[in-house]
Amino acid sequence: MADIGRHRWAIAEGYIPSASADPDDQALVSHETACILNAGESTANVTLTLYFKDREPAGPYRVAIGPRRTFHLRFNDLTDPEPVPRDTDYASVIEADVPIVVQHTRLDSRLAEIALMTSMAYAEGAGGNG
Amino acid sequence: MADIGRHRWAIAEGYIPSASADPDDQALVSHETACILNAGESTANVTLTLYFKDREPAGPYRVAIGPRRTFHLRFNDLTDPEPVPRDTDYASVIEADVPIVVQHTRLDSRLAEIALMTSMAYAEGAGGNG
Amino acid sequence: MADIGRHRWAIAEGYIPSASADPDDQALVSHETACILNAGESTANVTLTLYFKDREPAGPYRVAIGPRRTFHLRFNDLTDPEPVPRDTDYASVIEADVPIVVQHTRLDSRLAEIALMTSMAYAEGAGGNG
Amino acid sequence: MADIGRHRWAIAEGYIPSASADPDDQALVSHETACILNAGESTANVTLTLYFKDREPAGPYRVAIGPRRTFHLRFNDLTDPEPVPRDTDYASVIEADVPIVVQHTRLDSRLAEIALMTSMAYAEGAGGNG
Repeated sequence: MADIGRHRWAIAEGYIPSASADPDDQALVSHETACILNAGESTANVTLTLYFKDREPAGPYRVAIGPRRTFHLRFNDLTDPEPVPRDTDYASVIEADVPIVVQHTRLDSRLAEIALMTSMAYAEGAGGNG
Repeated sequence: MADIGRHRWAIAEGYIPSASADPDDQALVSHETACILNAGESTANVTLTLYFKDREPAGPYRVAIGPRRTFHLRFNDLTDPEPVPRDTDYASVIEADVPIVVQHTRLDSRLAEIALMTSMAYAEGAGGNG
Repeated sequence: MADIGRHRWAIAEGYIPSASADPDDQALVSHETACILNAGESTANVTLTLYFKDREPAGPYRVAIGPRRTFHLRFNDLTDPEPVPRDTDYASVIEADVPIVVQHTRLDSRLAEIALMTSMAYAEGAGGNG
Repeated sequence: MADIGRHRWAIAEGYIPSASADPDDQALVSHETACILNAGESTANVTLTLYFKDREPAGPYRVAIGPRRTFHLRFNDLTDPEPVPRDTDYASVIEADVPIVVQHTRLDSRLAEIALMTSMAYAEGAGGNG
């Protein structure tokens, strides 16, 4: 399988609600995720940078994704170099040394029912075959 | 960090429900947002133009976003040159003098639970590295 | 304002639920919409073709959108040359003689609460400035 | 009608909840779908490959879609060469020998109400007219 994707992605939306109807239900706790696919034959060394309204960016956060693997990174779980503040608008740029595909989702369980949303991230530059 | 994005974006969907289950809950009031990321090193001077079904466009609305910042602009909050009518179909074009990334979201709380939707906006022309 | 968009768009998802919690509430009846923006200075002559799983395509459906206008076309309202069947998978191709932008949404009110989803449609070919 | 689309698509998000409020309601059971449009005049021979966090990819899964037809493929229904595990993160790459358009949706009915999300998949390479 040839690789697929781009080296640079951006997600302009970002917001992790601090509240969840059932905070003990890990699957249904309010969260935001960057779903990352590395379909190629080399490990993807990925860095994330987070942008805010009124402070300098946070990061870089680093994650390695093996060849032919996907990793659904929860922004809630980021801690190094610092956790992602809750109830705060942010945006993110995701960069990798090999082509990857990035899709953004939020599961919002502030109220009794869940709400979902997803969007492919914005991809910059030429594709893996480009 | 190099800039990322495009100079011209469009969002064809637009509709702000006038109703909210709890109009006093600012976080959960029905709203539409254009999440704008300016990852570059220069201030982004952004203009929005709104299109309607049966009248001439409104705007331009203007907002400045500092370098390395994101701004999640609620259409609900626009007032100059005129507020965005509720319960009315609209669309928007967003333009900037530097590359930006634009993502559209709606939180709809007309009923007891919230519904969410999001999409990266349509980007025109060559990318920031293009 | 210069035009923005493409001449050919496709939406692979399509499904209008026949049920709505309150069928008399026009705003909240289950529906699918193609939000179309014509930001240019000429009328857009738009044609839609619908594709199905096991029959030949329906259409063309025709709609004209004036310059500097948006039209949020509900698939529910299409009748000529034939209505869109409910509870049936379909897809659509939207074509125009000038650049337009197309975004797809569904509001689903089969149960007591609404669910929403949206995606920019797939755009083919070079952009309005391309 | 000319064809429209691309030969290679990727969906980085993938997750089929094992639970549904009413598992006997086929329309509202929790599911993920790849909506595929083949607007061209030749049959599309489509292959899907699924990627996981900590095992080698599954597939290829194969499906043929006739000319001028759409097929909304539920990942839940895949069985050959193996079913898709529930409650497990995955991603997918979809490839065809003719241009197709691919859109991803999830209907999530783990709780009493449904949640929906959709995104056009990531398209690689030149378009059908490219």
